[in-house]
Amino acid sequence: MEIAKLGEFGLIERLTKDIKLKNNSTRYGVGDDCAVLHYPDSEVLVTTDMLMEGVHFDLTYIDMEHLGYKAATVNISDIFAMNGTPRQLIVSIALSKRFTVEDMEAFYAGLNMACERWGVDVVGGDTTSSYTGLAISITCIGEARKEEIVYRNGAKETDLICVTGDLGAAYMGLQLLEREKAVYYQQVEEARKKGDQAALKDLQHFQPDFAGKEYLLQRQLQPEARGDMIAKLREMNIRPTAMMDISDGLSSELLHICKQSHCGCRVYENKLPIDYQTAVMAEEFNMNLSTCALNGGEDYELLFTVPIGDHEKLESMDNVRQIGYITKASLGCMLITRDDQEFELQAQGWNPLK
Amino acid sequence: MEIAKLGEFGLIERLTKDIKLKNNSTRYGVGDDCAVLHYPDSEVLVTTDMLMEGVHFDLTYIDMEHLGYKAATVNISDIFAMNGTPRQLIVSIALSKRFTVEDMEAFYAGLNMACERWGVDVVGGDTTSSYTGLAISITCIGEARKEEIVYRNGAKETDLICVTGDLGAAYMGLQLLEREKAVYYQQVEEARKKGDQAALKDLQHFQPDFAGKEYLLQRQLQPEARGDMIAKLREMNIRPTAMMDISDGLSSELLHICKQSHCGCRVYENKLPIDYQTAVMAEEFNMNLSTCALNGGEDYELLFTVPIGDHEKLESMDNVRQIGYITKASLGCMLITRDDQEFELQAQGWNPLK
Repeated sequence: MEIAKLGEFGLIERLTKDIKLKNNSTRYGVGDDCAVLHYPDSEVLVTTDMLMEGVHFDLTYIDMEHLGYKAATVNISDIFAMNGTPRQLIVSIALSKRFTVEDMEAFYAGLNMACERWGVDVVGGDTTSSYTGLAISITCIGEARKEEIVYRNGAKETDLICVTGDLGAAYMGLQLLEREKAVYYQQVEEARKKGDQAALKDLQHFQPDFAGKEYLLQRQLQPEARGDMIAKLREMNIRPTAMMDISDGLSSELLHICKQSHCGCRVYENKLPIDYQTAVMAEEFNMNLSTCALNGGEDYELLFTVPIGDHEKLESMDNVRQIGYITKASLGCMLITRDDQEFELQAQGWNPLK
Repeated sequence: MEIAKLGEFGLIERLTKDIKLKNNSTRYGVGDDCAVLHYPDSEVLVTTDMLMEGVHFDLTYIDMEHLGYKAATVNISDIFAMNGTPRQLIVSIALSKRFTVEDMEAFYAGLNMACERWGVDVVGGDTTSSYTGLAISITCIGEARKEEIVYRNGAKETDLICVTGDLGAAYMGLQLLEREKAVYYQQVEEARKKGDQAALKDLQHFQPDFAGKEYLLQRQLQPEARGDMIAKLREMNIRPTAMMDISDGLSSELLHICKQSHCGCRVYENKLPIDYQTAVMAEEFNMNLSTCALNGGEDYELLFTVPIGDHEKLESMDNVRQIGYITKASLGCMLITRDDQEFELQAQGWNPLK
């Protein structure tokens, strides 16, 4: 159905009619000039992220439902990265005429799925038009008691540096999707040159070769916020001294922590957590695996530092890897390679403005 | 200077280095995964607006500084429309390569000017790239005591309907800008056809004809949030029963209030507040003046209802006009024309998705 048939308010009504508010802190949701929230006993955390078509996502390989899920997740992840609990989400979308009501419903279905997963209420937004691509801006609001909040600036000398899950898989997933897209366009181009109509028709059912790489795709198309690890750390009574989520790549994020905490670090290449599929794919692409793990973005894993005294507790936890430790600032931010060489860590991660 | 020279983090640092936080509720601003706010004694108001180049603004006639001012103002206006006090603002921008560091500085200068005007802190955002135009998404956060908040759904039968300032001027300003843009392109086209290089050169210094129309331009390019009227209403001890700001046009907004308050209304054409310049311009364009006042958007004036007992207090106030009253829902939403005819109010205002 064309969106023009419903208009702005009709569309909003359709997309938001089934919303049931879950949080006590949500006093008023969609439908007025502002959402109204109530946080008498905790600090309010606010984060925002903008996703532009062609820059942050490519609709030739992510569908609207996964896009909605991912757009919500990357914002929810920022609340966890402060050791907070996500509560509300506001979503703004600008879309061009090629999008249908069904596209928007799929986007909201994905968005709502991520929100349901973490008990987050959708409380407002803006729906408007765009001349060209799709633009998405999401603001997520959460809460934390003052003493619970973990900033980027609290890392101390001798603290252990930890990451959850594994790194580089989302980046390899992207490479895989890009490759299959290129293969598809190449085959279309060849068939066109030959005027092979039968081949062109077959290509409408082009099957990309993803066998055995499902994990990489999932990491790229449906990343998860690590609220589970935040809960686990609390359960184990471990309180990180600094924390952030890894969206631009481990190196870049670790440099942020070191800069803001006025310290240096030593990270060991052989400790970087890397999934088997990521390793196989890097081999296939002839890429340096550690570079992928250090600089590939969109993992949305947590990077955090803890006092060295927590070493044993951490050892007993699944899905956490100790990859190095914090040093004096004067020692710099160093990567120790497998053959014991030292290199300065570089922020080669994703930079949209370079 | 090219933005690539600074990169994302360099640019953010440059744009935010002079920020001084003014509000007690702002605990932590730019520089971490989230901003941290503290609202123990009041409700938190949150609003967001997305502005897309080509849809919401045209950089051939608004400069980056005015754009920044306007982008902040339209969000601040939504906080006032709930009878709240704006406190924090978060700004996301996606920009293509044609923008320079100086463009961004101008945008932030305008944004900061609007924030200074109302004591608002810039506490975060996202700066990223776009393949095509400029996309801006702003979230504004404010506060209000629970009992002070004015929703759209509180209008009652016999309440008076009021608007601040005057209506239709921002819309006429837009028409004027569009006309001069068309004149310019027409002259360029003609000179090109004739191959008249001298005329083409002269056109680089094209002077649009804005004489005597300054107010219309100002209303379009530099709208003001009506925090002054919110303060005045408080001073006069007048508490609106329903309120919103007029961004899409009076008719559209009034229908929102009636729908959400389950009531009808009667509005008098001869009471619509219209500036002299708006009237002259409508005459010049051969447009119906009342239609401009009812459906022209972007006035950012306040539309509110008050108990009829406040009639005399309102009479004594400057910059407020009583334009009609609230009725039973069964009587519909009616416009009473100068010659005493009744027409149903139509939401012909700006609809980005039609």
